[in-house]
Amino acid sequence: MSSKAIFYHAGCNVCVAAENALAEALDPNRFETEIVNFADAPSRIVEAESFGVESVPALVIAGQPFHINFGASMADVKAS
Amino acid sequence: MSSKAIFYHAGCNVCVAAENALAEALDPNRFETEIVNFADAPSRIVEAESFGVESVPALVIAGQPFHINFGASMADVKAS
Repeated sequence: MSSKAIFYHAGCNVCVAAENALAEALDPNRFETEIVNFADAPSRIVEAESFGVESVPALVIAGQPFHINFGASMADVKAS
Repeated sequence: MSSKAIFYHAGCNVCVAAENALAEALDPNRFETEIVNFADAPSRIVEAESFGVESVPALVIAGQPFHINFGASMADVKAS
């Protein structure tokens, strides 16, 4: 059975590098990976924060948030 | 052909959580993942720094470093 992995980003360079190398490196047999760009889906910001996401890019695996490098804070995302 | 992925950590709680959820989530068909604990392999610190690793836990994928959350700086690792 697949676990859910959600990669949240905001389109910044740090985010895109992490998306290309890391989010897409997950095992597709074990993870259903969804890519969420807040520029396209601002309504998902609240959901990301509910998982504890404080900055982007971030990868939430089975509900657990991992912040990868640092592109922008969620405060900056909300202000943009 | 597999790419090389190296997960560097120092045994801290933040590191172990990232190892369990993230390092082991990579696609084994595409990545040969090595786990390096500096407590066991202090000689690998120089190698990690050569990839640009500044803190642990960190995942280096095909030579590109990704810092995941924040467990300890490399300065702290070297001092411990």
